[in-house]
Amino acid sequence: MILVTVMYPAGAETKFDLDYYLSKHMPLVKERWTPHGLSNAQVVKGVSKPDGSAPDFQMMALLTFGSLDNFKAAGKAHGREIFADIPNFTDTQATVQISEILA
Amino acid sequence: MILVTVMYPAGAETKFDLDYYLSKHMPLVKERWTPHGLSNAQVVKGVSKPDGSAPDFQMMALLTFGSLDNFKAAGKAHGREIFADIPNFTDTQATVQISEILA
Repeated sequence: MILVTVMYPAGAETKFDLDYYLSKHMPLVKERWTPHGLSNAQVVKGVSKPDGSAPDFQMMALLTFGSLDNFKAAGKAHGREIFADIPNFTDTQATVQISEILA
Repeated sequence: MILVTVMYPAGAETKFDLDYYLSKHMPLVKERWTPHGLSNAQVVKGVSKPDGSAPDFQMMALLTFGSLDNFKAAGKAHGREIFADIPNFTDTQATVQISEILA
């Protein structure tokens, strides 16, 4: 299994429409990618670093796929539509990373 | 519930002893912090960005706690011992963030 992390950087000047993100974007992601092996989608909102300072990422989506091939096929089939939706809720540039789930 | 992400940056010059991390460090984390509300500990190994370039983080631990108070108490009780173990497996500086689990 793999984990795809989509991390939206924090910053005072950035905009992020949480309501749109939760009510429109993430349901779109789940609807399109669940048939392609998306088995879990966790959404977390950055609070702080342990010392109380601002977090690096204001929002993160943690997407679990059955395999890397699943994710590649999901991206190929619906990536364009999903990525095109991002400017509807944020002007930040997300950092996306693929990781292997070890434990 | 909250998610504590511990993200170890990638870099050709860095060292990371995966065997020690999985066989010694993470079991220590679970043993010490489970009684303080740690309910899940996922470990993922960075593979790449979607375009195939190197990932930003070579390893990430995703720790779920019942509450922020749980994590604070866990850190107070055993943080020193756990943090002191980090140089035993890596010379990188982890980025730690606390996030609220929304969905």
